[in-house]
Amino acid sequence: MPSIRTQWTRLIRFVAAETSEVHIGEPIDSTLDVGLASSRGELIKAYEIVGSAVDPAAQVTDKILTVKHLLSPLSREEVGYVRCLGLNYRDHAAETKSPLPAFPILFVKPPTSLIGPNASVVIPKATQPPQEHLPDYEVELVIVIGKVAKDVSEANALDYVLGYTGANDVSFRMHQRAVSQWCFSKGFDDTNPLGPCLVSAFSIPDPQVIPLKCTLNGSVVQDGNTSDQIFTVRQTIAFLSQGTTLLPGTIILTGTPKGVGFVKTPPLYLKHGDNMSVWVGGGIGTLVNAVREEGVSVSRL
Amino acid sequence: MPSIRTQWTRLIRFVAAETSEVHIGEPIDSTLDVGLASSRGELIKAYEIVGSAVDPAAQVTDKILTVKHLLSPLSREEVGYVRCLGLNYRDHAAETKSPLPAFPILFVKPPTSLIGPNASVVIPKATQPPQEHLPDYEVELVIVIGKVAKDVSEANALDYVLGYTGANDVSFRMHQRAVSQWCFSKGFDDTNPLGPCLVSAFSIPDPQVIPLKCTLNGSVVQDGNTSDQIFTVRQTIAFLSQGTTLLPGTIILTGTPKGVGFVKTPPLYLKHGDNMSVWVGGGIGTLVNAVREEGVSVSRL
Repeated sequence: MPSIRTQWTRLIRFVAAETSEVHIGEPIDSTLDVGLASSRGELIKAYEIVGSAVDPAAQVTDKILTVKHLLSPLSREEVGYVRCLGLNYRDHAAETKSPLPAFPILFVKPPTSLIGPNASVVIPKATQPPQEHLPDYEVELVIVIGKVAKDVSEANALDYVLGYTGANDVSFRMHQRAVSQWCFSKGFDDTNPLGPCLVSAFSIPDPQVIPLKCTLNGSVVQDGNTSDQIFTVRQTIAFLSQGTTLLPGTIILTGTPKGVGFVKTPPLYLKHGDNMSVWVGGGIGTLVNAVREEGVSVSRL
Repeated sequence: MPSIRTQWTRLIRFVAAETSEVHIGEPIDSTLDVGLASSRGELIKAYEIVGSAVDPAAQVTDKILTVKHLLSPLSREEVGYVRCLGLNYRDHAAETKSPLPAFPILFVKPPTSLIGPNASVVIPKATQPPQEHLPDYEVELVIVIGKVAKDVSEANALDYVLGYTGANDVSFRMHQRAVSQWCFSKGFDDTNPLGPCLVSAFSIPDPQVIPLKCTLNGSVVQDGNTSDQIFTVRQTIAFLSQGTTLLPGTIILTGTPKGVGFVKTPPLYLKHGDNMSVWVGGGIGTLVNAVREEGVSVSRL
């Protein structure tokens, strides 16, 4: 019988080779980039965690499992839906020639947009005029809320954080430009990788010093740091919880630094066969995801 | 033992006097405005429905129950989150001096914003500069999706509709003006009444002839018809399902007609003690909701 060890510091969710079932666990190698390792087919072992990610009583055990398929640290059901900030880095506001927002800019994605590490980001068939999707990458730090939060002060805001993970907020610029609201253009099925590790809040005491990077087909296209955020993690939680209950499992994507494709000359859009890697520091790691057009076989990649 | 009768045509959800538990049912009086009757404390009887609202096999039985507390026809859990269209009536676009949108304008609310008939709409304590909330009413027809819908054509779009209900998309204009995206300003806790009846799609073969009305403290302030919608129900479902799976239980608020408070001279904003009634035709009925400031006792109304 496995003995209870401790609280988790880095949580992953995966299908285990031993059981073919979904488990959560703590990687045995505390310095391993689990996302990168899994994308290379390397063997990953983890101590099983008993409980769920949002369960404060969840504990790491001595039982060792082997990762067969790495998943997002939270399921679509645990997340419910996805809160996101737009335009939250000074350098990204500058490159898009946008004024700095006076308040956090919140938009929302459906849970059907979420995918895990190594899954393909899908460019949907849907062809609405002007018939171009203009898909673009965006590396982001993600806040995961652990306790019911409402009307929280900036001073206390970090007490409500369970941990942090990473995301690639893939955006379809044609649709984004077509209407004032971004919920449709950023909400397509299977377009938003989430993960790979959920790192506990007590392992990241200062979320404003986290480096993050996006690599497209081997070239670094974004290289930023959360120190450049317009609204800090504290300010974001305090603002979004005003008059609004944030439930445990709530995730908040906190915006992307400069380097997005649509502002480059010429513009750099995602296409079938591209390989994206978004890396977030603090032990969160790398999400590796290919891009494929819906209806086109992955085997052609 | 109750015998199975038929499929439902008007569905309500309620706590029954007989059981003190939540049930769904079909009002015995097929012409009764259940929302209005419940707001007056009138006795309402319903045949129990076995199954859930989104269960195609749900059937009306002969078992009669008494409505103790009327609820929204769908729970927060069944809805998941709330899709809404902005600016979808020609007369409302005209009164706000907005150009007609080229595509449906989608924004999203959290399920925590939903309340039932007769519950109070809460003006949150949260005070962000410039310290005025400017709450406003908006009567809307609501589409409820019954089958998994993706890449649906306009021609087939109505086949995916389970039924229709009503909503009051209470909006906080200060926050709505403060940022470009509307998800925060329209997403506060306990601000969005939903109901009272869910009327089956086969009872409303043409959703573009539905009258709808909002009454504030006894005065009619909105008096419109879905015939004035910019994007029809068919077009809305076809657009929102492009590249995006709409799951059973998905609700879509389809916008509000002219008459909102913020364009009036002088502007008419909601205040503590106000009584709102929003009525949607086609058998959906009236949602009666008072307005109260958070932290102020309802008994003072």
